[in-house]
Amino acid sequence: MTDTPKDPTATPTLDRVRLPSDLKSLTDAELKKLAHELRTETISAVSQTGGHLGAGLGVVELTVALHAVFDAPRDKIIWDVGHQCYPHKILTGRRERIRTLRMKGGLSGFTKRSESPYDPFGAGHSSTSISAAVGFTMGRELGAETGDAIAVIGDGAMSGGMAFEAMNHAGHLGKRMFVVLNDNEMSIAPPVGALSNYLTRLYSEAPLQDLKSAAKGAMSLLPEPFQEGARRAKEMLKGMAMGGTLFEELGFSYVGPVDGHDLDQLLPLLRTLKARATGPVLIHALTKKGKGYAPAESRPDGGHATAKFDVATGEQKKSPSNAPSYTKVFAESLIKEAVKDEKIVGVTAAMPDGTGLKQFAEHYPRRCFDVGIAEQHAVTFSAGLAASGMKPFCAIYSTFLQRGYDQIVHDVAIQRLPVRFAIDRAGLVGADGATHAGSFDIGFMSSLPGMVVMAAADEAELVHMVATAAAHDEGPIAFRYPRGEGMGVDMPEEGVPLEIGKGRMIAEGARVAILSYGTRLAEVLKAREALAARGLAPTIADARFVKPLDTDLIDRLVAEHEALICIEEGAVGGFGSHVAQYLSDQGVFDRGFKFRSMVLPDTFIDHASPEDMYRSAGMDAPQIEAKVLELLGVAIAKRA
Amino acid sequence: MTDTPKDPTATPTLDRVRLPSDLKSLTDAELKKLAHELRTETISAVSQTGGHLGAGLGVVELTVALHAVFDAPRDKIIWDVGHQCYPHKILTGRRERIRTLRMKGGLSGFTKRSESPYDPFGAGHSSTSISAAVGFTMGRELGAETGDAIAVIGDGAMSGGMAFEAMNHAGHLGKRMFVVLNDNEMSIAPPVGALSNYLTRLYSEAPLQDLKSAAKGAMSLLPEPFQEGARRAKEMLKGMAMGGTLFEELGFSYVGPVDGHDLDQLLPLLRTLKARATGPVLIHALTKKGKGYAPAESRPDGGHATAKFDVATGEQKKSPSNAPSYTKVFAESLIKEAVKDEKIVGVTAAMPDGTGLKQFAEHYPRRCFDVGIAEQHAVTFSAGLAASGMKPFCAIYSTFLQRGYDQIVHDVAIQRLPVRFAIDRAGLVGADGATHAGSFDIGFMSSLPGMVVMAAADEAELVHMVATAAAHDEGPIAFRYPRGEGMGVDMPEEGVPLEIGKGRMIAEGARVAILSYGTRLAEVLKAREALAARGLAPTIADARFVKPLDTDLIDRLVAEHEALICIEEGAVGGFGSHVAQYLSDQGVFDRGFKFRSMVLPDTFIDHASPEDMYRSAGMDAPQIEAKVLELLGVAIAKRA
Repeated sequence: MTDTPKDPTATPTLDRVRLPSDLKSLTDAELKKLAHELRTETISAVSQTGGHLGAGLGVVELTVALHAVFDAPRDKIIWDVGHQCYPHKILTGRRERIRTLRMKGGLSGFTKRSESPYDPFGAGHSSTSISAAVGFTMGRELGAETGDAIAVIGDGAMSGGMAFEAMNHAGHLGKRMFVVLNDNEMSIAPPVGALSNYLTRLYSEAPLQDLKSAAKGAMSLLPEPFQEGARRAKEMLKGMAMGGTLFEELGFSYVGPVDGHDLDQLLPLLRTLKARATGPVLIHALTKKGKGYAPAESRPDGGHATAKFDVATGEQKKSPSNAPSYTKVFAESLIKEAVKDEKIVGVTAAMPDGTGLKQFAEHYPRRCFDVGIAEQHAVTFSAGLAASGMKPFCAIYSTFLQRGYDQIVHDVAIQRLPVRFAIDRAGLVGADGATHAGSFDIGFMSSLPGMVVMAAADEAELVHMVATAAAHDEGPIAFRYPRGEGMGVDMPEEGVPLEIGKGRMIAEGARVAILSYGTRLAEVLKAREALAARGLAPTIADARFVKPLDTDLIDRLVAEHEALICIEEGAVGGFGSHVAQYLSDQGVFDRGFKFRSMVLPDTFIDHASPEDMYRSAGMDAPQIEAKVLELLGVAIAKRA
Repeated sequence: MTDTPKDPTATPTLDRVRLPSDLKSLTDAELKKLAHELRTETISAVSQTGGHLGAGLGVVELTVALHAVFDAPRDKIIWDVGHQCYPHKILTGRRERIRTLRMKGGLSGFTKRSESPYDPFGAGHSSTSISAAVGFTMGRELGAETGDAIAVIGDGAMSGGMAFEAMNHAGHLGKRMFVVLNDNEMSIAPPVGALSNYLTRLYSEAPLQDLKSAAKGAMSLLPEPFQEGARRAKEMLKGMAMGGTLFEELGFSYVGPVDGHDLDQLLPLLRTLKARATGPVLIHALTKKGKGYAPAESRPDGGHATAKFDVATGEQKKSPSNAPSYTKVFAESLIKEAVKDEKIVGVTAAMPDGTGLKQFAEHYPRRCFDVGIAEQHAVTFSAGLAASGMKPFCAIYSTFLQRGYDQIVHDVAIQRLPVRFAIDRAGLVGADGATHAGSFDIGFMSSLPGMVVMAAADEAELVHMVATAAAHDEGPIAFRYPRGEGMGVDMPEEGVPLEIGKGRMIAEGARVAILSYGTRLAEVLKAREALAARGLAPTIADARFVKPLDTDLIDRLVAEHEALICIEEGAVGGFGSHVAQYLSDQGVFDRGFKFRSMVLPDTFIDHASPEDMYRSAGMDAPQIEAKVLELLGVAIAKRA
């Protein structure tokens, strides 16, 4: 008989934890075990659900330490972006639901106020946590029942302008609050254990204001090999665009850097700060994305986001794709245009992969700019490039473009500068949910005078729209396209500039015309098939442009049909509203013309599969069919 | 016979200058005379036109120095905000038109690309100049025909997040460009002339990298009294939230502080930098707002903005007002609500005067937060306050709220946090022109699920809307009101919360109904009077809410009339679009109901008087009357 080998997936310590209050009774040694098990559980869960992996693994110890030391939900732990919150969710009463992550009806992939009192401030977009923490802090100062506010923010998110605005304000106010800078661009050098133990003692014993000098002074007391580790840590810090001094000039006490994976450093430090801090404190923690899971650690992005995968190998279980993604089509089209025109440049804001500009940069490194998480700057920088005579393609997801809205109005549209906006992830986005939906860009772009605004109905159209944008030098132009794969249509050899403001007929029919804007066209065509089977095939047209509107096409559709349906993947105020404005101005309604505008419903749609989302949004083929039948006065049986 | 006294308003040097190239032939002594005359001319012009005075007077010497040293328009001098550009306009071929500032058809009060090649990048909003300068710089690096980019930005504008984003990017790129930090919160101490002379010599002789240390080293070489001046300058710098070190950590060479009113410092410094700079340089210039004009200097805001005034006394020629401004009504109403509810707090972004929160702060200093030029933070900070249980009123002009749009979507609306948005300067704003128009807020606010969106028809309504917002704790709520004076209506003793989503009948009439959203109601009533004289008085209603829509009211208006006209001071995609969506969904158009939506035209409307703007926007009483007559099929004579 041999001993039964210990089960590496067992989680005896984690099994004792349902809520953060359960951590209070654990020893530091048990907390270390807890961290280990929490990491195992996180990997296991994400292997089944897919989602953001690297960020969560990078903050396992931070999560344990913050919950062990602070008292959520009275204390407000605010995770910036929120994609690193899976370990936090496991520790805050949501372990039993963690394998429903990002599924319809399941847990959100981000923090979410409506999901738990332990999520005091939801996220999805970056750089908001410090502002929220300042809000909680000043609420407390004015008598609100709330404890300490702790923002946990990555080094990338710290480059967003609003994080700077918030630091500037927090430093000015001078009230007690905490910002944990989760610096995962680098990891602390391994051989610093002795130093960290030394620092730990200092943290516990020294008054707060001495912490930093003590940490500095520690170096000279150490034997040579440890000095080397400390020196490397210091150099890494110095190599950052922003170091401690910057934060101190903004009014924060700076503590760090500390090893964000070493509970022997984190726990005493946080305990000391909790006991003694009087003003705003920035804790600089060095972490590693994907920490503790080799397949993630070894990926250049630290296993940022993943499909379901095999835990042992890390191999992702992706379904084979039938068509190229819109992102890839955009990137390849842009490269083709850039070959022909050396004035074409690419600009993105920390989304080189997601927008395809990484591929562009491989061909044209000097002509591609990733400005970091800084959408405002990205837009106005593009405007400056355009003013100098360049042809910038500013590629930003619809939802993040919201952050550059004022710059689009003020720096681009008012000045009529020919910035090309490539708006990826337009419309519903599936598992990322409401914070990432691109619901509003049609409205906020098309209300701007002089802006040309297009939507691609399929990936071949996208090729032509890139060419159209490249050729359009008279003013700003934008084109939107969705997340995910194209329709699998035949692809053109080369993009051909479209005539500005002209749509296209897709299929002639009778009585009802459907004017589609964007990729709902495929569902419209499915609906047409079903209707054709009843002998009721409608006319189908693709608007291509919401601005300028193709009024000739609209006039023709109105003249030749008894009803017109507009459809778009966007909120009210967009394409259908522009068409309605035109029709009412023309007096078309006066004579009893039937008009409907199918838009996204007036709700924030929670994460689900895209199909589920379209169904609940009333935008799939059966619902389009039903709308036509309703207009024709044909009675239909309700769908089950 | 006595000597004729020299005319103090004579401008013999300025008279020799038509374009910046004319400065190249002037000696430094003549440039000083030029600066003196330029100041005189600026004061004289603004005394006749009104406008921004203090900022321009603060940069007279900077303007002269930049144009003397750099070569505009090949070099790109980019004035942040642009309200300090009057002296620049005088030196760049626009002197003969300078007394048309901010008048219809005259010069813009800001920089404007369409006005002059010497305005390479227009402005109006703050903190955009560095992004634009980075754009020009990288355009040059990629072969565009452009010289040096020089951004001139105030210390207030530097606190805007996008300025930080741009600095961060510029420092990363490392290319030659210049940022002049026009620091006018403080002025350099007077007795530093000897030091400045010393520095001047150093500037001229030392290589660039030694400039700063030389300036530092200079102190110890000076006799005691001058040391005192230098020490004071240094301390002032240290007292700033951001000092040289911060800029250096962002990758800039830092030079300063220099006396921004001393051409003996500025000219050699800029010449040296122009000859030798290789990377990004920040020049820290200390200036005084309103410099050189006692009535402006003595005002706490340095004579920021002014009506026409008497040059000798500084006395402003304001027309007496008949009614309180909307801003004042908002402030007083908020104070009244705050008396009753201690959870009410105010938040603004560097607009305490303009939003009336200054008055609120006088009553409740602890409950009022001015976060600086930082709209993004203002919104999310408000969301954090709301999440902690406070009742924040976030008061931001419509045009500047655009900069917090993503935060409104992501941090407020998705989370349903009860932030109250007080949207001042909604609609057309007169002399400030297109960059300051509040044209888009109806659209971008009302497309957000769960947002309650109101517009005040008059100042009494505003009182009630403040009360409504104070009482509404279920989610976010917004109310808009225009710039300027109210209608002079009777004011209620106290605000009474309105029923959410309910409009009001104003006047019963026949055949046509006008549903007004916001302050166009007054013109609508004028139009009604004219129509009544013809026996065609329409029904008038005030919608109060665009969201939720008062569908009962709309149904009634539709049922009882043959036509409905919506009117709002906003772009397409707002109130009228929501009504059209509702009406088409209801099938109202199917049966031939006449509907019109009067919205702002699809153009950026240049500065003019409000009356002119409304006329050109098609929104005054005669045009409303004409619209009704058109719907009724009554032929009308064209207006002259």
